[in-house]
Parts: sequence; C-alpha cells; structure tokens
Amino acid sequence: MDISTLMKQVDSYTNEFTAFRRDFHKHAEVAWTEFRTTSKIIEFLQERNIPVQFGLDVINPEYTWSYPNQEILEKCQKRAIQEGANPDLVARMNGYTGAMALIDSGKPGPTYVFRFDIDCNDIDEAKENSHRPYAEGFSSIHENCMHACGHDGHATMGMILAAVLYENRAQLLGKVKIIFQPSEEGDKGAQAVVMKGLLDDADMAFGMHLYPTDGPQPALAGTQKGLYATTKFDVTINGRSSHAGASPQTGNNAIMAAVMAISSMQSFLQDGRGPTRLNIGTISGGTGRNVIPGKCFFRAETRASDTDAEKRLFNSAIGCVKAACEAFGCTYDVKIMGSCPTGSGDEDLAAQIVEATSIVSDLKTRQLVLNNTGGTDDFAYMMEHLQNRGKKACYMALLTNITSDLHNNYYDFDESCLPAGVKSCLAILHYFYEKIESGK
Amino acid sequence: MDISTLMKQVDSYTNEFTAFRRDFHKHAEVAWTEFRTTSKIIEFLQERNIPVQFGLDVINPEYTWSYPNQEILEKCQKRAIQEGANPDLVARMNGYTGAMALIDSGKPGPTYVFRFDIDCNDIDEAKENSHRPYAEGFSSIHENCMHACGHDGHATMGMILAAVLYENRAQLLGKVKIIFQPSEEGDKGAQAVVMKGLLDDADMAFGMHLYPTDGPQPALAGTQKGLYATTKFDVTINGRSSHAGASPQTGNNAIMAAVMAISSMQSFLQDGRGPTRLNIGTISGGTGRNVIPGKCFFRAETRASDTDAEKRLFNSAIGCVKAACEAFGCTYDVKIMGSCPTGSGDEDLAAQIVEATSIVSDLKTRQLVLNNTGGTDDFAYMMEHLQNRGKKACYMALLTNITSDLHNNYYDFDESCLPAGVKSCLAILHYFYEKIESGK
Amino acid sequence: MDISTLMKQVDSYTNEFTAFRRDFHKHAEVAWTEFRTTSKIIEFLQERNIPVQFGLDVINPEYTWSYPNQEILEKCQKRAIQEGANPDLVARMNGYTGAMALIDSGKPGPTYVFRFDIDCNDIDEAKENSHRPYAEGFSSIHENCMHACGHDGHATMGMILAAVLYENRAQLLGKVKIIFQPSEEGDKGAQAVVMKGLLDDADMAFGMHLYPTDGPQPALAGTQKGLYATTKFDVTINGRSSHAGASPQTGNNAIMAAVMAISSMQSFLQDGRGPTRLNIGTISGGTGRNVIPGKCFFRAETRASDTDAEKRLFNSAIGCVKAACEAFGCTYDVKIMGSCPTGSGDEDLAAQIVEATSIVSDLKTRQLVLNNTGGTDDFAYMMEHLQNRGKKACYMALLTNITSDLHNNYYDFDESCLPAGVKSCLAILHYFYEKIESGK
Amino acid sequence: MDISTLMKQVDSYTNEFTAFRRDFHKHAEVAWTEFRTTSKIIEFLQERNIPVQFGLDVINPEYTWSYPNQEILEKCQKRAIQEGANPDLVARMNGYTGAMALIDSGKPGPTYVFRFDIDCNDIDEAKENSHRPYAEGFSSIHENCMHACGHDGHATMGMILAAVLYENRAQLLGKVKIIFQPSEEGDKGAQAVVMKGLLDDADMAFGMHLYPTDGPQPALAGTQKGLYATTKFDVTINGRSSHAGASPQTGNNAIMAAVMAISSMQSFLQDGRGPTRLNIGTISGGTGRNVIPGKCFFRAETRASDTDAEKRLFNSAIGCVKAACEAFGCTYDVKIMGSCPTGSGDEDLAAQIVEATSIVSDLKTRQLVLNNTGGTDDFAYMMEHLQNRGKKACYMALLTNITSDLHNNYYDFDESCLPAGVKSCLAILHYFYEKIESGK
Repeated sequence: MDISTLMKQVDSYTNEFTAFRRDFHKHAEVAWTEFRTTSKIIEFLQERNIPVQFGLDVINPEYTWSYPNQEILEKCQKRAIQEGANPDLVARMNGYTGAMALIDSGKPGPTYVFRFDIDCNDIDEAKENSHRPYAEGFSSIHENCMHACGHDGHATMGMILAAVLYENRAQLLGKVKIIFQPSEEGDKGAQAVVMKGLLDDADMAFGMHLYPTDGPQPALAGTQKGLYATTKFDVTINGRSSHAGASPQTGNNAIMAAVMAISSMQSFLQDGRGPTRLNIGTISGGTGRNVIPGKCFFRAETRASDTDAEKRLFNSAIGCVKAACEAFGCTYDVKIMGSCPTGSGDEDLAAQIVEATSIVSDLKTRQLVLNNTGGTDDFAYMMEHLQNRGKKACYMALLTNITSDLHNNYYDFDESCLPAGVKSCLAILHYFYEKIESGK
Repeated sequence: MDISTLMKQVDSYTNEFTAFRRDFHKHAEVAWTEFRTTSKIIEFLQERNIPVQFGLDVINPEYTWSYPNQEILEKCQKRAIQEGANPDLVARMNGYTGAMALIDSGKPGPTYVFRFDIDCNDIDEAKENSHRPYAEGFSSIHENCMHACGHDGHATMGMILAAVLYENRAQLLGKVKIIFQPSEEGDKGAQAVVMKGLLDDADMAFGMHLYPTDGPQPALAGTQKGLYATTKFDVTINGRSSHAGASPQTGNNAIMAAVMAISSMQSFLQDGRGPTRLNIGTISGGTGRNVIPGKCFFRAETRASDTDAEKRLFNSAIGCVKAACEAFGCTYDVKIMGSCPTGSGDEDLAAQIVEATSIVSDLKTRQLVLNNTGGTDDFAYMMEHLQNRGKKACYMALLTNITSDLHNNYYDFDESCLPAGVKSCLAILHYFYEKIESGK
Repeated sequence: MDISTLMKQVDSYTNEFTAFRRDFHKHAEVAWTEFRTTSKIIEFLQERNIPVQFGLDVINPEYTWSYPNQEILEKCQKRAIQEGANPDLVARMNGYTGAMALIDSGKPGPTYVFRFDIDCNDIDEAKENSHRPYAEGFSSIHENCMHACGHDGHATMGMILAAVLYENRAQLLGKVKIIFQPSEEGDKGAQAVVMKGLLDDADMAFGMHLYPTDGPQPALAGTQKGLYATTKFDVTINGRSSHAGASPQTGNNAIMAAVMAISSMQSFLQDGRGPTRLNIGTISGGTGRNVIPGKCFFRAETRASDTDAEKRLFNSAIGCVKAACEAFGCTYDVKIMGSCPTGSGDEDLAAQIVEATSIVSDLKTRQLVLNNTGGTDDFAYMMEHLQNRGKKACYMALLTNITSDLHNNYYDFDESCLPAGVKSCLAILHYFYEKIESGK
Repeated sequence: MDISTLMKQVDSYTNEFTAFRRDFHKHAEVAWTEFRTTSKIIEFLQERNIPVQFGLDVINPEYTWSYPNQEILEKCQKRAIQEGANPDLVARMNGYTGAMALIDSGKPGPTYVFRFDIDCNDIDEAKENSHRPYAEGFSSIHENCMHACGHDGHATMGMILAAVLYENRAQLLGKVKIIFQPSEEGDKGAQAVVMKGLLDDADMAFGMHLYPTDGPQPALAGTQKGLYATTKFDVTINGRSSHAGASPQTGNNAIMAAVMAISSMQSFLQDGRGPTRLNIGTISGGTGRNVIPGKCFFRAETRASDTDAEKRLFNSAIGCVKAACEAFGCTYDVKIMGSCPTGSGDEDLAAQIVEATSIVSDLKTRQLVLNNTGGTDDFAYMMEHLQNRGKKACYMALLTNITSDLHNNYYDFDESCLPAGVKSCLAILHYFYEKIESGK
C-alpha cells in the first residue's frame, strides 16, 4: 500500500472537508431524521461508483429505539427535499436513515469496519457573532437541531475515507466497511445496525470521535475506555383526576406517585461493582392547579461503569415506579428510548494504533487511552459484538481544539484536524496489511 | 315596591336571558381578559342610561393576583374587538376588566350590593353533538376557554337585574350596586374590587352561584357555608445544570429539590383546627434526559376550613420549598396567584332570604344552607369585609339542572332557571324595603 | 326509687372513693395486665354478694388486640399477687382481666349498661413533691405504669355504683350491668367485651370519663361527640443486611423502605369526608452504623372523623408499606394493635341525661355535648353496637379540676368529683324508671 | 542482621502466639475500653524491659472520636481489673488505652513504625459448638464484644515482634516504634495517635491486617489500596411532642424531619470523582404511638473513593438534616464519631516488601496489592501523615484461612499464620538495613 500517495490524496480534499462539514452543520438533523445528510452521503458515494447500502439494508427496524412517529418523519423528509436531498433516494430509504460504503479489494483478507455517526443534538444553536458558525453563516437553520458533538465532522471524514480507499481499492486486502450510523445521540442507533448483521463478518472495528484537548493538536488516542452502560427510558404515570378541594380522596395522584417513585430510586445508587448514575432529566404533569393530577411523565436515564450494576439500577428504578403506582392506585408505562452496554476498546489494539499512526505527521502526539468515565456511546454495542466473538475493537479519539463542552450551544471545532483523522484510518489499514503480507 | 310588576318585567327578558348567556358562552374569556364580556355589559347598561363604572374605577391594580403580561392582554383585547367589543370602551378599560352598575334611588336608605362573576375556566370545551352548546352552535370558539362554572349565566342575571331595577329606581331606597367581577376562578379578582373600596359603604352583600340539584328545580339556598380559605401559588426553583454522566455533583438538581419539597409538604396536612388541602396541580422541569435539571416549576394551592390552619399550611409548604432549595443549593421564587379567606354567609340573613323569596313562584323549594365544604369563592373576601364591620352577607345558591360536575368540559345548565335568580334578588330588596318602611 | 336515700348512701362512701382511687393509682396496671385491679374489684363485689362475672365470661379472646405474651402475663400476675391480689381469683381469670357486676331487680324491665375502664397508661409518673400523688405517697410504684387518664377514678365509681344499686336492687327495674373494662388505652379492650355478647341485650349504654374544665366543677356533659375512628398498628419490615461499604447492593435496606413508606403515606391525609390523622409514633431499626439495615419497626396509628375515611387512610398506609417493601425487596408484617369506629352519643339521650341529672346538686352545671374532636375511646364500639340495633348510648363527661393534660406524667384530678359521677348514674336510672312506671 | 536467627526466635514463641491471641479473644474489649488488653501488652513489654509509653503519652485526647462516658469507662476498668489487668497500670492509663514500644538501636538511622490495632467489634459471639472459639473455650465472655476482625492476632504479632526486636536491638539501625492502637473499629483511634506526634519522625510506616484468601496460605500482599475516606456521625433531631389526635399541628415532628432528611440525602450519592456510600445504620425515635414524636436519633456514615467527594457527600447529608429541621421546626445536633481519609499504600514500597519477604519461607505466595475497595481503616491517617511529608507507607495484608466474612459472629482465623506476619516485618527491616548498609 502506497501510504504516502494515499495521504497526499487526503490533502487534496481540503476544501471538501470544510465544505461538507459546514453543509451538514447548517442542515443539522436529529436522530432518525438524517434524510438530507444520508442523501448527500449516498450521492457523494454513488458519484464515485462506490457501492453503498442504505435504508432497510443497514437498519433492523425492530431495534430502532425512540423511532419518531410518521408525522415527524414526513415533515423531516419534506424539509430534507426542500433543502436539496434527492427525492428518489429519500423515497428509497423507506423511512430509515444511515448508509454503508462497501469497499471490496477483490482479494482475500480481513473485513475491517470504520463507523462514523451522523446525527445532531436537540439543541438550539447560539446566534451570536462570537460563535463562529453563526458569524460565518453556517450555523444550523433548524430550530432545536445543532451539531454540538462533532458528528458533522465524523460524517465528512467517513466520506473522504471512502473516496480515497475506493480509488486505491486495488491496494487493499479483503474488505473495508464504512458505516454512517444514524441516531447515536441517546444511544439509539447502533443496535439496529448490529442486529442487521453488518458487523457479523468484521475482524476489527474502529470508531472515531472528536474530543477536546488542551495539549498540542491534532492528536490521537488509541481508544477510549470506561464508557458507561446506559438505559434511556420514558415513564408515563396515569392516575385519575378529581376536585382537589371537594374530593381529593377519589383521585389517584399521578404527580405524587412520580414524586415517591423518583425519591425512592435515589436509594439504589450505591453499588459495590462501580459508580452509577440516575437522572430524571425532565418532568411534566397535571392539568390545573385545583385538580388532583391524573397524569405525570418523566424522561430518565441510568448509567453505570458495570453492565450488571446498570441493569440492577434500571430494574430498581422501574420497581420504584411500579411500587409507587400501586400505592397511589395509578398505572404506568415504561418505554425504552435507548440503551447500550459498557464499552472499552482493547488496549493491545490501541497500542498497535499508536504504533501504526506514528507515520501520520499531522498528529502532534499520540496516547494509548482516553478515559471517558461516565460518558456513553453506542459504538459500545459494536465493540461488544466483536469482543464477544474474540475480535478486537477500539474507539479512537481525535483530539483537537473545541470551543466549549460537548453538547453546548457554543460548540465549534477546528476543521483542520479532519485530514489527520482520515490519515490515521489509512495508516491503521496500512499497518495491518503490512503485517498480513509479511506473514506476522 | 310593586314586586309583581317587576317580576313580570323580568319575564319579558326571556329571550335576552338565553341570548346573552349563549353569546358569553360562545366568546368565553378567562380571568383578567374579559374585555368583550365587559364591553357587552357596559354597552347594555349605557344603552339604558344606567350609570356604570369600570376599569380603574372598579379595580385596585395593586391587588390583581395572576394579572397577565402585556402580550396576552393585547392579544385578548384585539380578539375582543374583532369579535364585537367596542374599541373605545376597551381602550378606556386601561387593561382592567369588570364593571359596576350603580342604581341610586335618590332617596336615603341602605346600600345593597349584588355580585356576579364573569370569567370562564381554562378548559377546552367538549366538541361532541351530545354536548348541547356544541350541537346548538354556541360552544366556546376560544381554545382553552370555557364557561364551565356558569358565570355566563351569572353575568346575564346581573344585567337583567340592573335593567329592571333602573327602570323602577323610583321604587327603591338608598342605592343598589351590581358588581360584575372579573377573575373569580382562582380567587384572583375579589380583593382588587374590595381594596378599591366599592363595598365600604355596603349594608348588605349578596352573591349568587348556580349549583346542581337532584331535587325539584329551580330552587334557592339562602347561603353557602363552609367555603375554605385558600392560597394559590406558583413555585419556580432554579438550580444549575450539569452533565448527568460526567459531573452530576456540579449541578444543583431543581427537580430533586422540588420532589423533596413536595414530599415534605404532605406531612403538614394534619391540623386540629379543621380539614386542610394541598395540591400540586401541575409540574414541569428540566431540559434534556442527560442534563441535571436546572429548573423546575409547579402550580400549587392550599385550602383549609380554618383561616389560620390554611396560613400555617401555606407557610409550612413554603418552608419546605425553602429548606429543600437550601439542601440542593437552589434558589426559588414563590408567586401568590390568588387567595381568599374562609367564608360562610350569615344564617340569620339566610333565613330572611328564605322568607323573602317565598313570593318567587318560579322557585320550587328553598333551603337555608348549602354546604360547600372544600370549595372556595373569593366572594368570601366581600363577606369578610362586611362581617368585619358588623354587617351581613350571604352567598346564595341557585339550584338547577347541570349536566356534569363544575369545571368539566361537558358542563351545561338549564337557562330557564335564570329568571328565578333575578326575581329572588328583587324579592330580597322588596323584603328589606318593606321592613324599613314599616319601621321594623 | 327513693333517689334521695340512694344519694345519701353514695356520700357514706366518701372515704372509700379516695382510698380505692389511690390504691389503684399506686398499683397502676397497663392494658391486659390489670390482675390486681380486677381482683380488688371482684373481692369488693363478692364481699357484698353482688353477682360478678370475669375472665373468659367477659372477654372473647379472639378480639384481644395487643394481648401480651405469656412471659409478661406471668410476671404481672406474680406482681399482682405479691401486692395483694387474691391468688385464687387471679388463677380463675385465666389470663383475662376485667369484670362485670350484674344487678338483677328480679322484675321485668330494661337492661341498662354502665361501662368503666380500669387500665393505666404506659407513662412514668412524675416523682416530684409538686406532684400531689408523689407528695402524698400514692404515686405509682410500677415503672412505666401510671393512671394519667383517670381510670382509677372510673373503676372506683363503678364499684360504689354497684354497691349502692345492689343494696337497693328491689327499687330497680330489669337489670343493670356494670362493666369494668380492661385495656381501653389504645382502644384494645371494648371489642373483646362486645364480641362476648355482654351488650347484646342492652337497651341503653352509658360510659363516663373524667375531663378537665375551667368552669365551675364538678359538672356533667350529657355526651361526648366527635370521637374519631382509629386503627393502631405495628409494622415490621424485614430486609437483608450487607456491608455498607463493600456491597450495599446485596442488602435490602429496611430503614429506607420504612422511610419511603412513611413519606408516601402522608399524601393520603386529605379526604373530603372529614379530617384525618396519621402518626408514626415510634421507629427503631438497624443494628450497626456500617451495616445496611435489615430490619425496621414502627408503631403507627390512623384516625378520622369518618369511619370510611379512616379505613381508606389505614389501607393506603398499608399499601405504601407494601409498595415500599416491594421496591426495596423487603417483606413486612402488619399487626393491628387496637381499633375502634367513630363515636358520638345520641343527642336526644344526652338531653334526657341533662334533664335527669338536674336533681344532682353536687353538679354545678350541665351541658349537652362535649366535643372531643380527634380523641378516641373504644366505648365507641359499644355505642355503635347499640346504635346499629336502634338503641341509644351516651358517653358522658364528668368535668372537674385536672392538673395537666391527659396522658401527662403530672396528671392528677380532684377526687371530690367522684360522688357526683355515681349520683348522676343513679339519677339517670331514676329518670328512666319514672318514665317507665308512669307509662310515658 | 542475622535474619535467620531472628526468624528462629519467632518460631520459639509458637505457644505464646496461640495463648495470647486466645486470651485477648476471650477478654475482647471494644474501642477505648481496651484496659485489660493494654495492661497485658504493657506487662509483657515491661517484663522484658522494653521501653513502653501509654495513656496520655500515646493519645491526644482532643481527637478521641466516640470516647465513652465516665460511667462506661469505670465499669470497663473495674471489669479489666477483675479479669487480671494490673490495677496500677490501669490507673496510670488515665482513661486512655493503647501503647507504644520504642526500640532504639542506639545507632543513627531511620525510624520505622509498625502499627497493630487492638480493639474488638461490638458483636455478640456465636455460642455454638460449630464455632471453634466456643467449642475450645476461648470465645468472648463479654456480651456484645467479639474479636471478629482479627485484632487479637494483630496485638499478638506486635508483642512478639517487639520481643524479638528488643532482644536483637544491637542489630538494628535507628529506631523501631511498635504502636498498639486502640479504637480502630469505626476509624476512631488513629487520629489521636497521629496528633500526639508519634509518627512525626517516622521514615516509613507499616500496617498489617489479616484477610481471608481462597489460595495457598499464609500469603502476603505488599499493600492494600482503595481504602475509602469516611465520616461516621450521629444525628439527634429535637422537635416537640403534641397529641397526635387533638393537636398534631402544635408538634414539631422529629421522625418526619428525619424521614425527609434521610430521603433527601440519597440524591447526593452521584459524584463524577468516584463511587460513594451513605448508610443510615440505625434509627430510633418517638415515645408513644399517639404522640407526635419529639425526638429522633440516627447513626450514619458516608464513604467515598475520593476524599473531596466524601466531604461533599457528608456536607450535603448534613445540609439535608439542617434543611429538614428548618422545615419541621426542629433543632438538631451532629456528632462526628469517627473519620479517616482515603488510603492507598505506595506501590513502589509494596514492590520492595514483596521482594524483602521472599526470604520468609512460611509465606506460600506474595502479591503486590490487595484491593480493598469500599473498606476503610484509619491507618489511612497514618499513611497520609507520612505521604504528606514525602515519606512512604504500606498497609500489608496477611492472607490466611478465615471462617467467615469479617465482622461476622462466626469469625475465626488460623493462628498458624501469625509467625509469618512477624517474620515478614523482620524481613522488611532486614531488607532496608541491608540497603542502608550497602549504601544504596
């Protein structure tokens, strides 16, 4: 593999890196509604004759957590088309976003998977001149939709990587799959991809995520470790209204049931197997001041550094909901809105990544591990899927300047790091192909 | 006072009773936004040359609980004008609804006050053919606005009463004040009227409210008793958001503070002085599932059969909010949205009302007292105002067929009871004028 | 009935009134352990040949709430005998205290029941010279046992009443039953007496209780009204201990389950049917600071002015225990320790009592009703038993000087009121016998 | 240092190892009452002329957490003397247990500290033949006192170590201090020793604790790591009693204040800095079922893997107590009963320990670290004291057969491991003296 030529090809896309990223940023789409983003990716690939799958060929619809209702989907499809999505492609997506480029060398060899996520956050982007995307005219034009986690950059890297690899496919071994995953925010999309079987033949899987650094940049961490297991869930409590003055006793107070459930849950946060988290992120209930409230709804999540501890905490929380509802004569409904297991890349593979990327001169430094304690990413599902089969996976961090915390409405990153990301992926392939060819 | 002639005059308004009631019902307006209703009342009175005060002549703006913001006021004024309110009158209201007809006999004598409330509930009216107002085309055309407590009928009775009395003013003694009070729902308007001084010279005050009965109807109860004291209040808790996974400890959890405050309050419901009530009618808080919630808001009310017990319960509830906010590092804001004391009409006056209305043949039966335990009405402020000065007041109940509970979206009442209500007021005046004239 | 002679006979017992009351006071015995008190009553009656039943002839053992264990019973029986109880009588009691004097006139006529309770409170009596019983040497010699509710006086009145009636039995009609009821404190004994059938033939039943007054005394109230329904119950929660540092998640935290149950219960205090009460009087749980607590116990009671409201509150409280235990993986045990329904004497009978006792010159005043809102007395069971059969009952209050609140360790009362109590009972019999004899 | 001779001398104490351990086990004494244990240690040392300090020479009384009251101290002193303690020594202890043997080589060199704890647990020892100490007659004769954490073995090792070292003091360098620390259970004693200054001149400090192992035994771990920071605290809440039926509103309910405080605390268990623990180990409150409880008391502890996280949790818990007491009109008192920081021995020193003890043939295996996550030991204070001054410390684990969990009433260990513990200490000294002498 003529790695130095490939790297130069990456550099030839400098304008595209910026243009694609900003286009995605401006037309940010939240989980399961990335119709325009997916359309743009597919068109880019098809223009280059790169084989691409999408729609029900990449998604198992039985595992699409928090999938939106038809009304929202149609509204977002219409919006996507108005803003330049290909109507035919959108129609063929059948309501399911995401895509996979399949680059087959035609030679025997391993199957390596690279995963890039493509959805945005449900955040209203800052509209101030101090915020570069706004000042330079590429801030999100969609209300409550903002790329505040860098997935616009991830998608862009995936596209360029696919282009360079396909152009040089004769130099590869086996196959490379580049997955453009929808709905990573809330850990809602990876399982649908895994359960479609796309990773069943993978020998290695690599994820990549932009992270802030205070040191020299761009830089690379071989893998993230310590991703927590999590369950995202919505709880609806149904009671019965009554007049708060005349007959409070004939009502079944849904707000009080929620209060008691939430209060009780806190007692289950201790676990000898590791730290845990529980958050009631939003709550809403009741209809009027003088009416015993007949309904209450809350959005919650549990997390833990240990998968069993997370399961116990989630089950205990639901047990508290059940118990409180019994005590208050209410019924309840729990809806799983997302979930993923704990995740840590393999350290020996991470060490190889560090070694492999020594040839990427864009990178100022390399480190073995980035501890992402308390964070979650549903790439953990993909890692688990490989690790359960005795295969290896790593969730690399591309470290760069970022203007704020992740998920903040002032988030912006330095686009000049993106080529380094693509080159790192190429260097990894180069490293393992060399090994295979040298028979080690 | 030629009472039988006056009663016949009431009967001549049969069409108006139905027409006005249905017009008000169709254009229902919630508390402090009764611009069209007030305009229609003023025009009716002015067409008959009946002296009428309104705007800042009937309202003390320092006591207008839950007064809406300018944006809402302007929207409602514009809507009122579009739907037939007199633009000049709306302008002269200065933002304050309600009116008072002043009927002066020109002779010495007592000042008697009749109070009718005019606002609707914030309820969406049923849109089904089984619901007569919808079937007959007079259901509310305003979203989340519905006369589900009969104030449309009350306002109508006040108008006809004013018309008949003014036409026969030569037969009266002293003065009669007919107050069209805004904003009774939530007990928000009476204090503003009282603090304007409108009842300072009153010798007696009478309220009237439609109530359901299973017995023969229409019927009259001399007074309601057992109205609870109440405080309506809104609580906003402000904490600090943080990432629920990475740094829960740097947030100040406003939902948990609310949960603890609400939970703690329940312990203060016991009071040896009488039954109490506490309701958290609505709650809303938080912004996202994975963010420690920085804000929580709830609407609450306390009630009690004893004014001091109500004060204690309210103060204890606020004490719980304060304490929980301290524990969770949050700040809070409590806004009083309405309040009134306990109220019970004078039983001896009620007995006189029963006696006085024996001449109203429309009434099928009369009873001394209707116990309205647990209910509230801010007419209690007016009763208290008179009773504190050694005067008497009664809060009559006009009993009729009502299709549902009060404050229900299927509420409807039998308009044929309305003349009996007006005649009862006339009979009361006749009774006391007879007493005065006979020197008893 | 030669009432004036009978009254003089009462006065001849002046010394006994004081002596018996002080002897009972000094040897105070708590619920179900009144072996010495019962023995002394039986001996007094038997010395006068008055027919007396006791043991299983007055108690249905299936309804003996909070009945002590064998060890406590034996200890108290031994103590009673050491302090002068008749060993033979104690043996024949078969473990069940209480007695009934049956005075049969031999003539046809009604059966009237008078009930006096005999147990003391579980309070440590004040040991200071300012407390008269201590200064004069008749304070309780039993630890945590004190007559702080006047039952020593009640028992004494019952004995003298029995003596005078039996001596003059020829002047009576029908029968008079004088019940010396054990275990009134905690509402634990009346049901066992009622379910034994002792009141099945009663035409009227009268209870009597000493109450404090600030007015002239002694005085009499024809009946108490407003006694609350109540349930006394003990809750034991069993969880599982574990090491609080190493494995909190393997424990089932009984204290946290109790905390959540207790917290939740408070929400059920509101009831449109009337005021309610809930008290967790004591709590204890856990074994060591660093052990997840495996056990928690609490003593609680519910009360309400309405029997159904009390039942609902009790059931809701137990529902909260059940729910919390499910949430925390604990089991629980609820033990009913006492209970009684609401109670109010019949006002028309009370009026007759007021009339009948006009001949008792010891009484300074008489009143129809004493409102005992929030209080409980299991005489309510007896009243209910008669009222359910269409009969009448009253729970009279003998008003006198009392040095403190009831159930206070400084409680003392003025013994000079006791003859007035006995005379009132005689006057009532005289009044109704006159009526019967005069055929009214 | 002629290490093989010293080791043989250790073996000559085989009988004493068993005899002392069993004597201490039989006469187990809880924290701050180890008068007999201390007396026996002092006598053993003084018989051998080993310099020993005790009483106020080893304890700073200002830092004696949970120090018992005078009555308990006197009772335990009397018991100790009855069971063979030296009355003169007990008197000279001045109420403060613990001792330190000071072995001075007379030569320049480092000061090394060995710490052994001597108190027992407040546990009732199993009295069954399946429990060896009971079957063989050396189970604890003191109610609620049991060596269930091996401190009887620790004290014994310290004594033999002192004897062997003193006999061979000419072979040492510098000084060796052997501290017999009282009151380790509950982390109550170490700070008093540290604040007396005994470790101010220490160059290294070594603790040793018996731990169970499933592998070959005896074995040694160079250090424990992951000891949590902790605070042990007692909370007393004072409210005001009132009659639960008549006037619940005049009471200040101490149990409800505790319930709310405890419930609220649970919300503070999440911390991004590491896992935390909170336990309400015991609770007791109230006086009677029908009395609003005026008092509630609970014993609690907080722990965390991070000292700041532990401080935050403790402060938040106290904040919840403060807040709940304000809401319920109660006052409160918080008493610190014990505390220690996080602790982890130095891994490089642990590695040297593993190397040094390679010559101890009794040891079957050696390991670098024993993770004691969630556990606490106030030896952490001593480690922190040295580490803050740039010195090293390790908390070794002597691994052996133990019949149950620590702090269990069936705890017993295999005494044959004890010589290996003492020999390990000697080997460590030998290792470092060699280094010093060889100039490395």
